[in-house]
Amino acid sequence: MTKIRMGLLGAGRIGKVHAAAIASISDAQLVAVGDAFPEAAKALAASTGAEVRDVEAIINAKDIDAVLITTPTDLHATMIEQAARAGKAIFCEKPIDLDLARVKACLDVVTKEKALLMVGFNRRFDPNFMEVRRQIEAGAVGTVEMVSITSRDPGPPPLDYIKRSGGLFRDMMIHDFDMARFLLGEEPVSVYATASVLVDPAISTAGDVDSAAVILTTKSGKICQINNSRRATYGYDQRVEVHGSKGLVSAENMRETTVEVATGAGYTREPLMNFFMTRYTAAYRNEISAFIAALKAKTDMNPSGNDGLKALLLADAAALSVKEGRVVAV
Amino acid sequence: MTKIRMGLLGAGRIGKVHAAAIASISDAQLVAVGDAFPEAAKALAASTGAEVRDVEAIINAKDIDAVLITTPTDLHATMIEQAARAGKAIFCEKPIDLDLARVKACLDVVTKEKALLMVGFNRRFDPNFMEVRRQIEAGAVGTVEMVSITSRDPGPPPLDYIKRSGGLFRDMMIHDFDMARFLLGEEPVSVYATASVLVDPAISTAGDVDSAAVILTTKSGKICQINNSRRATYGYDQRVEVHGSKGLVSAENMRETTVEVATGAGYTREPLMNFFMTRYTAAYRNEISAFIAALKAKTDMNPSGNDGLKALLLADAAALSVKEGRVVAV
Amino acid sequence: MTKIRMGLLGAGRIGKVHAAAIASISDAQLVAVGDAFPEAAKALAASTGAEVRDVEAIINAKDIDAVLITTPTDLHATMIEQAARAGKAIFCEKPIDLDLARVKACLDVVTKEKALLMVGFNRRFDPNFMEVRRQIEAGAVGTVEMVSITSRDPGPPPLDYIKRSGGLFRDMMIHDFDMARFLLGEEPVSVYATASVLVDPAISTAGDVDSAAVILTTKSGKICQINNSRRATYGYDQRVEVHGSKGLVSAENMRETTVEVATGAGYTREPLMNFFMTRYTAAYRNEISAFIAALKAKTDMNPSGNDGLKALLLADAAALSVKEGRVVAV
Amino acid sequence: MTKIRMGLLGAGRIGKVHAAAIASISDAQLVAVGDAFPEAAKALAASTGAEVRDVEAIINAKDIDAVLITTPTDLHATMIEQAARAGKAIFCEKPIDLDLARVKACLDVVTKEKALLMVGFNRRFDPNFMEVRRQIEAGAVGTVEMVSITSRDPGPPPLDYIKRSGGLFRDMMIHDFDMARFLLGEEPVSVYATASVLVDPAISTAGDVDSAAVILTTKSGKICQINNSRRATYGYDQRVEVHGSKGLVSAENMRETTVEVATGAGYTREPLMNFFMTRYTAAYRNEISAFIAALKAKTDMNPSGNDGLKALLLADAAALSVKEGRVVAV
Repeated sequence: MTKIRMGLLGAGRIGKVHAAAIASISDAQLVAVGDAFPEAAKALAASTGAEVRDVEAIINAKDIDAVLITTPTDLHATMIEQAARAGKAIFCEKPIDLDLARVKACLDVVTKEKALLMVGFNRRFDPNFMEVRRQIEAGAVGTVEMVSITSRDPGPPPLDYIKRSGGLFRDMMIHDFDMARFLLGEEPVSVYATASVLVDPAISTAGDVDSAAVILTTKSGKICQINNSRRATYGYDQRVEVHGSKGLVSAENMRETTVEVATGAGYTREPLMNFFMTRYTAAYRNEISAFIAALKAKTDMNPSGNDGLKALLLADAAALSVKEGRVVAV
Repeated sequence: MTKIRMGLLGAGRIGKVHAAAIASISDAQLVAVGDAFPEAAKALAASTGAEVRDVEAIINAKDIDAVLITTPTDLHATMIEQAARAGKAIFCEKPIDLDLARVKACLDVVTKEKALLMVGFNRRFDPNFMEVRRQIEAGAVGTVEMVSITSRDPGPPPLDYIKRSGGLFRDMMIHDFDMARFLLGEEPVSVYATASVLVDPAISTAGDVDSAAVILTTKSGKICQINNSRRATYGYDQRVEVHGSKGLVSAENMRETTVEVATGAGYTREPLMNFFMTRYTAAYRNEISAFIAALKAKTDMNPSGNDGLKALLLADAAALSVKEGRVVAV
Repeated sequence: MTKIRMGLLGAGRIGKVHAAAIASISDAQLVAVGDAFPEAAKALAASTGAEVRDVEAIINAKDIDAVLITTPTDLHATMIEQAARAGKAIFCEKPIDLDLARVKACLDVVTKEKALLMVGFNRRFDPNFMEVRRQIEAGAVGTVEMVSITSRDPGPPPLDYIKRSGGLFRDMMIHDFDMARFLLGEEPVSVYATASVLVDPAISTAGDVDSAAVILTTKSGKICQINNSRRATYGYDQRVEVHGSKGLVSAENMRETTVEVATGAGYTREPLMNFFMTRYTAAYRNEISAFIAALKAKTDMNPSGNDGLKALLLADAAALSVKEGRVVAV
Repeated sequence: MTKIRMGLLGAGRIGKVHAAAIASISDAQLVAVGDAFPEAAKALAASTGAEVRDVEAIINAKDIDAVLITTPTDLHATMIEQAARAGKAIFCEKPIDLDLARVKACLDVVTKEKALLMVGFNRRFDPNFMEVRRQIEAGAVGTVEMVSITSRDPGPPPLDYIKRSGGLFRDMMIHDFDMARFLLGEEPVSVYATASVLVDPAISTAGDVDSAAVILTTKSGKICQINNSRRATYGYDQRVEVHGSKGLVSAENMRETTVEVATGAGYTREPLMNFFMTRYTAAYRNEISAFIAALKAKTDMNPSGNDGLKALLLADAAALSVKEGRVVAV
């Protein structure tokens, strides 16, 4: 069995996660790591047995089948185009770009080059949310009618990050827009969003919001509610609930242990896992496995570049809805 | 200790519930029951030891301190006015009327007569929701930021009822609008609603919807999400969740027992309580107790006629939002 | 439909509970109340509309069909015998007596007089434990193999009570011995018990223990574990678990509300209901209903005097097991 | 930082688990693998980068600091002795031996050679049970009074295995005896056990039992209940509960996902994880980490050879209790 030979572009936090995933997959091999900071690439290469190479060299290497793009967002689209032209299969962290026109141009190149592109919406690969989807497909809840998504971060990111993030809808809720599409089974046609700064006034100064709620409606009348907050004192709150004609399927939060302490003050369980990399450990591993498996089986990439585009369309519509205080058709 | 002498106007299903509540309260006594159907009044009088009297006679009786109005909705406003003029304290089932102008006219009479009026938003007296409110007031979750309310009926009411109901927002979600006000601690200033017919096309023919979601926003940016469905195969789904600066407080659903069966097919608990009168047994008793206690202590009525008006304003705004496909300012 | 005419012997705490139960049952009527303390009888009579009569008069009254014995334990056996001879149906609070020989003599009279006798093991009528039994009978868990019963009181009773109680096994664990028989579906043939004083040394001085664990074994090898403590800081801990060839059925504890508060310190639910009369409200009502229903339907009493005897046999065996540090055959 | 150089004796199922653990620990390196079946050793060596060597060669190698013994049980004691004499640190899977005298002789050699020996009671390293212990040590439940341990396997092992296993108490409940000692904080002084064949009569023919319950009592009167079954249709049931003067701490079971499906038939969660290697994945990794950490820090091994001995003493006492139908002092 030939292994898929991988090049990793970006040796930061998420790059390390993906490198560990590759190491655990027998069908894949990490050949080279590149990063604008050579020290980062060196450290990761040393611990994985991969070589350090220039980013450009990796993209054009003969001995590499696929690249994983985990660089800062503003480099994604260009690297996707370069890799597509170089005939590489591509896994790229979300988003492709914060600008819709740029995303479309990038996807045009991908299409023209017939390149294989998977976008890293990791939550689709979380065992809980996969099981929710599986239950829907198995008919456990009948026809889907209403989806509710709660997604709250333990705390806000640094202001510097927020300024470059594209805003809460493009940076944070984009995961929930993708989850909505994953669970609704039908495209939203209208978006209403409301948003506030309740967590930290500095976020307002940075031009963003920290609390938001959205309603999506599909053509046949299915409804999706989403709420986001940049603060949840009790951990990383990530739940979905799908209500259908035959019942309800829901995924609850995750904890490190199942321990409960009971005293005169009540029954207390620990807070939720509070870091996305811990909470989604299995999801990160599963998505890289799915990418490798799709390459081996020559099946369609899922989620695709188009999925990345559609989630961004919803995020843009939500931002516009807040700005103009009106419902936005998609 | 003098007992509050009560007259019950309406001997139907909910009238019986309130009669049982009065029987369990040592400070109150049911003196008389009246109903347009004398047989109904007779039956209830027989089982409670009260007299049967004409509705008008009860309203004007010298030996009655307070009336409970549990007649059909279209009689509420007129009876409130009559009772107010007769110097009676009044408990009236929600809604005061389906028409906003009529409600306002009625409340003007109440104000002019300095009558005491409590409106039957029973959910405020559910032990779970009372405890949620108590936790908020105790500061357990800090400043309230987001409220989520799920409210789904086991199945739709008869079409005849739906036709006379004023529509889902005025008939069903009005409870959730009141709950939103109860928990937000600040008045909503904008309403967006979306609604669909997903449960039964006949409901559409009857001019109503059966599934809906709403976002309320307050001046300071607090957000409330509500969802309603006329169908929940798994029982009467009634949950609230309040997210604040310091944490989250939530009330879960109720079941008849705490039993769980585990087999190779999984761990199964029974469906939820599926009838509102069972689910809210304690709430119905508590609200009548609160009415009596307020009369004895001469404190303000809570929820008041104004609370009834404000919930109706939100329901009207939601209906308009759906009709015109836009956000409505309140 | 003729009502069963009841006489209540004992107007104390538990007598009041049963009087309220009778008031809520349309097939029954409380005719008279008797108590060694006339004031207690008067107060209860006043609030229920019953007459005050002497205990002897009630037992021998022509206009009374059945008596409820809720006097102190040392009067139970004699009153049962008197009522049996007077042709009354009898409901008696557990235990019939603390002395096995006395119980046997009493039951001989009951048998000779062909009297109907129900013993108040209220837990059999708790909705949760009834449902566990119903699931077993419906075959949900296959053949019963192991039963686990946890039964812990919020705190120890007064020392005076403990001295007269017959000891933890006859006073407290007797409920669990009855529950074991109710769930095992087969009589235990061997008892091993261990017991300690861990809660309060004064209990040792009073000649009793406050913590105990028991293993019962049946002829076919089914096993039952029971544990008791006179202290549970977190409320009244009452759980059962039945493991069978096809699965597990369990009943969890009960709380006043379903509210949970989540903060950085974790997710906290309130302590358990902590008073047996609140925890078993429905059970007390259900057992009186069952007594009335059995009288009306002329079916066997369940639990019977024999059930009272068998539970006491197990309690005696457990006490002997602790005393002699050995397994005791029953 | 020098890595601890490891030799693995036994390349079977559990050997692979430990090899994977070593690979994930930066302070350790797997140098060589040995197995009576060279093919097994070769396969594991190939996937880990270790060499294949004879078992004897590994035990005596100059370039190996510590050995992991994961061979069949009957080789454990001899290998421990050989490794102790060769100056190696030793991690050995439980049990040291099924025969108490043999265990004592082996531990004498370990003591004489001043060898470091850790015994693989993996459950002490399960995150849930570690947290229970941590809560006890932090004083969350005050003085420990009663411990309850439920431990049920999804299904019985092959009869061949059962025949060689030493019986349920030495093979299966030995983990629970160790857990009891881990949580009680005091040595049991008396053991009572009852056991039955309820799952499969063939187990009786093989000389063993499949269902058992035990009560352990300590000198100060602390009580521990344990129950075991070789069958649990609903998965691998592994729970502990510790009741103390100030409260209760418990660890619940584990599932693959947090998903729940609600329909008219009720609310259903999936069965438990049903394979010990999946259920205790983290525990296996944690115990090897603890072994390496103790070697690096030169601290005592925990659990030690003595812990292995004490758990076996309890298992022997339980087997004797069943055989002779009496309480056994330890």
